[in-house]
Amino acid sequence: MADVQIADVAKLAQVSVSTVSNVLNGRINRMRPETLQRVNDAIKTLGYQPNVVARSLKTGRAPMLGLLVPSIASPFFALLASEMERVALAHGYRMLLGNTHRDVQKETDLLEDFFAYGIRGVVTGSSLPTEDHYRPLVDRGLVLVSFDRRGAPGSTLPVDYVSIDNFHAGYGATRHLIEHGHREIAFVTAPAGTVSRIERRRGYEAAMAESGLSLDVIQLSLQTLYADGELAEVGRQMGREIAKRSHRPTGIVAMSDMIAIGMLAGLHDNHVVVPRDISLVGIDDLFLDALISPTITSMRQPLPEMAEAMVTRLVERLGDSTLTGTERVFRPELVKRNSVRALTKAG
Amino acid sequence: MADVQIADVAKLAQVSVSTVSNVLNGRINRMRPETLQRVNDAIKTLGYQPNVVARSLKTGRAPMLGLLVPSIASPFFALLASEMERVALAHGYRMLLGNTHRDVQKETDLLEDFFAYGIRGVVTGSSLPTEDHYRPLVDRGLVLVSFDRRGAPGSTLPVDYVSIDNFHAGYGATRHLIEHGHREIAFVTAPAGTVSRIERRRGYEAAMAESGLSLDVIQLSLQTLYADGELAEVGRQMGREIAKRSHRPTGIVAMSDMIAIGMLAGLHDNHVVVPRDISLVGIDDLFLDALISPTITSMRQPLPEMAEAMVTRLVERLGDSTLTGTERVFRPELVKRNSVRALTKAG
Repeated sequence: MADVQIADVAKLAQVSVSTVSNVLNGRINRMRPETLQRVNDAIKTLGYQPNVVARSLKTGRAPMLGLLVPSIASPFFALLASEMERVALAHGYRMLLGNTHRDVQKETDLLEDFFAYGIRGVVTGSSLPTEDHYRPLVDRGLVLVSFDRRGAPGSTLPVDYVSIDNFHAGYGATRHLIEHGHREIAFVTAPAGTVSRIERRRGYEAAMAESGLSLDVIQLSLQTLYADGELAEVGRQMGREIAKRSHRPTGIVAMSDMIAIGMLAGLHDNHVVVPRDISLVGIDDLFLDALISPTITSMRQPLPEMAEAMVTRLVERLGDSTLTGTERVFRPELVKRNSVRALTKAG
Repeated sequence: MADVQIADVAKLAQVSVSTVSNVLNGRINRMRPETLQRVNDAIKTLGYQPNVVARSLKTGRAPMLGLLVPSIASPFFALLASEMERVALAHGYRMLLGNTHRDVQKETDLLEDFFAYGIRGVVTGSSLPTEDHYRPLVDRGLVLVSFDRRGAPGSTLPVDYVSIDNFHAGYGATRHLIEHGHREIAFVTAPAGTVSRIERRRGYEAAMAESGLSLDVIQLSLQTLYADGELAEVGRQMGREIAKRSHRPTGIVAMSDMIAIGMLAGLHDNHVVVPRDISLVGIDDLFLDALISPTITSMRQPLPEMAEAMVTRLVERLGDSTLTGTERVFRPELVKRNSVRALTKAG
């Protein structure tokens, strides 16, 4: 059906070509729902596949998807960007990148810019607690997938959500330590500026409460919320402080692997050996986990699968404006390495 | 002079507005050099500052710069991209990203795509030995900065080059080991698919020859040339093999820090301790060098300064089509950490 033209769609839907064009390009604000439905039905019936490049040249709309991450300098988001680009290319899209530094204003400015450039599909990866700034853009036809958070209860925002079950990430990491005999377990986290961080902490708290254990939450003080190099550096400082405590936890759950990697360095700086003296579990499963010594046990985010899900969803929704937001939650899996020691009953 | 209009430029240069527009947008293939010179002189005299966004809306040319890296999943290139975006934003440009996987055909396709999207300024970071594929695009008005390599001797390609002195990176790392009493020094490298790798190796060879020492080049066998995760993994395998040698070098220069990090893991897997048993120097100065144990001594690439130089140069050349290619070489500095041990005379 490669030869189906926009005129064929218009004819079947009994509308003008420009109306079809409006649908294809998301200019549907003042369109009657019946008209929109007819056009989308005709597109499906005929199997019409708009050529994004040709369409771009005509409309000035670039065949591009946007990706907003806190900072591409983070190994985690760098891998996400790489996987996203791979999948986007397979769908005929390029990817435009922006760093939000987890700042609502910066994210808003970037989204406005992307929209002005003709981009209609964006993945936002900052897991910000507020979503109010999405509303005006979504109303104008921007299709959004929010990465690393779930929808707010009762939200009417037609946005897609793709994340791991962050609660389970914190819960599973903590359970792993409990199952290995640990009872004094600290949770080391960055400031609660993101939904995912809050959820991971809740998972830790739930697992501890279930077993009747006392909470020990250590929150890093960061000047900025985004830089992973900084996250590791502050993790290192906290590791040094924990090493100097007169009474140390036997296990640590790190909110992210970058914190875990820094924590490991800080403990080691003060001759506290992982896992001999303290066991450590991270979250994310960075490739670095397998390279450093000891290797770090971590709850895995399946980034390639998640990137696939996000791009596919954007493309689907760009092609069918009747689709609305959905939620896709991936289960994090524990990847066992060498940073956890089983305690004997006496330990 | 914010109110200077394109018509003012045209009047002073005694050309039509569309001629000025052609200059601003790089459509200068068939323009007489005198005309081009007059227009550029008038732009300078009047201090005309084209509004890139407004110009983009009129011309369909996006106010974007392109960045092509081997793989954004590499922590090194992720940091480069982050720094590039920071500087580009300050100049009013967004950044479009592409992964070349160090493949000439992929790089060519990406450049063609970027050009079709209206991008006229691109940084290529793959350090490919061949540059023939740049010629047709440069002839059509694409401004290129080639990162991580220098111009080929005698090349007439009007491309800018920004790199560290890769020869000195290899030379300085090797000298550091020699000055600490090492005489059996291996150089561990990836396949010689890039100019920078070849240069670093030459630096090692020169330093060794100067001191009358024997070469010991260990080349990793990689299925692909780009993935830094893979580079570290293969480095690890080589580390294990070196650990099992009956006679080991006392020092290793790693072509890049990702190789050094993998090498460290591989040596450690086999109970060869750095720096007690083997000293190790890397190149790049990744932030990971300071986090792992032991911390890794490395030759630093000053990425923030280099990103600044590259973006500034692109913007300059986009604003003045009479400028031609230049070369900017940064000196890598040795950052001393804990991976090198001084040998006694007897060692």
